[in-house]
Amino acid sequence: MIKKNINAAVLIIGNEILSGRTQDTNTSTIALWLNSIGVKVSEVRTIPDVKETIINTVNFLRKENNYVFTTGGIGPTHDDITAESISKAFDLKYEIHKEAFKILEAYYKPGEFNEGRQKMVWMPKDANLILNPTSGAPGFCVDNVFCLPGVPSILKSMLGGLTNSVIGGEPILSHTISLRTVESEIANSLTIVQNDNQDVEIGSYPFFQAGKIGVSIVIRSEDKIKIGSCSKQILNFVSKKKIEIVERS
Amino acid sequence: MIKKNINAAVLIIGNEILSGRTQDTNTSTIALWLNSIGVKVSEVRTIPDVKETIINTVNFLRKENNYVFTTGGIGPTHDDITAESISKAFDLKYEIHKEAFKILEAYYKPGEFNEGRQKMVWMPKDANLILNPTSGAPGFCVDNVFCLPGVPSILKSMLGGLTNSVIGGEPILSHTISLRTVESEIANSLTIVQNDNQDVEIGSYPFFQAGKIGVSIVIRSEDKIKIGSCSKQILNFVSKKKIEIVERS
Repeated sequence: MIKKNINAAVLIIGNEILSGRTQDTNTSTIALWLNSIGVKVSEVRTIPDVKETIINTVNFLRKENNYVFTTGGIGPTHDDITAESISKAFDLKYEIHKEAFKILEAYYKPGEFNEGRQKMVWMPKDANLILNPTSGAPGFCVDNVFCLPGVPSILKSMLGGLTNSVIGGEPILSHTISLRTVESEIANSLTIVQNDNQDVEIGSYPFFQAGKIGVSIVIRSEDKIKIGSCSKQILNFVSKKKIEIVERS
Repeated sequence: MIKKNINAAVLIIGNEILSGRTQDTNTSTIALWLNSIGVKVSEVRTIPDVKETIINTVNFLRKENNYVFTTGGIGPTHDDITAESISKAFDLKYEIHKEAFKILEAYYKPGEFNEGRQKMVWMPKDANLILNPTSGAPGFCVDNVFCLPGVPSILKSMLGGLTNSVIGGEPILSHTISLRTVESEIANSLTIVQNDNQDVEIGSYPFFQAGKIGVSIVIRSEDKIKIGSCSKQILNFVSKKKIEIVERS
């Protein structure tokens, strides 16, 4: 059984990304992980810490996609409003999650599980927990919406635990051919290959490395054979044009 | 005259960002620059190289925002479809831009301005050019939509030239107080400060630096006096709690 076109949206919640203060790296982490289990990211949105915006965006994205992954806004401070907003989006009670409470009660030393930290166990009623091997406080999942923290190292450590909850299609395979050339030199030949292989995604990306310019051609598909055939057509014109191949991966 | 609430959306066009292969850094570059001229980024979207998606998203965002900045998709290859899509979004002819043609004809050595490169001068009819001091090929602007390239160094070099085309409000000022503490320790006190100063944006961001954890409190407003007053309230509880201040900037 081949399940195709399983897609996800990533929703980055946080004023710090919109202000430019913080560079988002979670998109790339989540996308690479999703690709490896056969889920394609269809779009990414970054929105401010505004309850109404979070509610509306989540409600739109969860209907348009198989999965939604949110990052940010599940900490203990006043600007952490993701859990409350998700509760509203699903019309669920926002309440203390007993299992999360037990986890954090056991995680902290006696007396350390203060009021501030207790905010982190308020979640939508009956949410499924996403365990956090790094810093205790769990994320949570309601229906097809997975809520993760914004701190990249913590988020990264939580993805592994989700592999059984997210059901993907065929893994999306990718093959890269990096050439010592410029885009305009190969544009026409590459267009022909793309037209010949409409269901394969072919991207062309200029790079600048160790003082030298080049172009990476990235071929993406669930089908190994189609990637192979595209690759062959590309290597064909590369050889004819006597372009140096820098790397294949 | 104080113009307030001038906002912009950033639209990242590119499969390479959605696949996780490339880490977007343009959002942060554009946001920091916009902030400095008094424009707030209201949302960021990343979408695939799909004409229909580009057209619909641009048409939505340009009505919801004072400005839209797109990145990516204006190079010479088959996956560069931003200019054609913007033409469609505005119902303008997609044609050779005479001024852009002259610029690139002069930029390249005789014979080098080949068919591939000539694709880069196809633009929406009567688009305003955004000059490119790095690599010749200009970006363009139609109405309130500014189309920039995806390569970060080139994009960066083009922003300066836009300062007179983008009219912002009061610059958004920001003050950061970094503390040697954890969020839960200050969450309640910070909530009181935020409630007392509803029109100031106060964010709390944990950090991990040189083996030590801390929290940065970021206060943002167009009003220097309001930032000062917030800052005073925060330093007040910080001093009472005997929390070490790591940095103020």
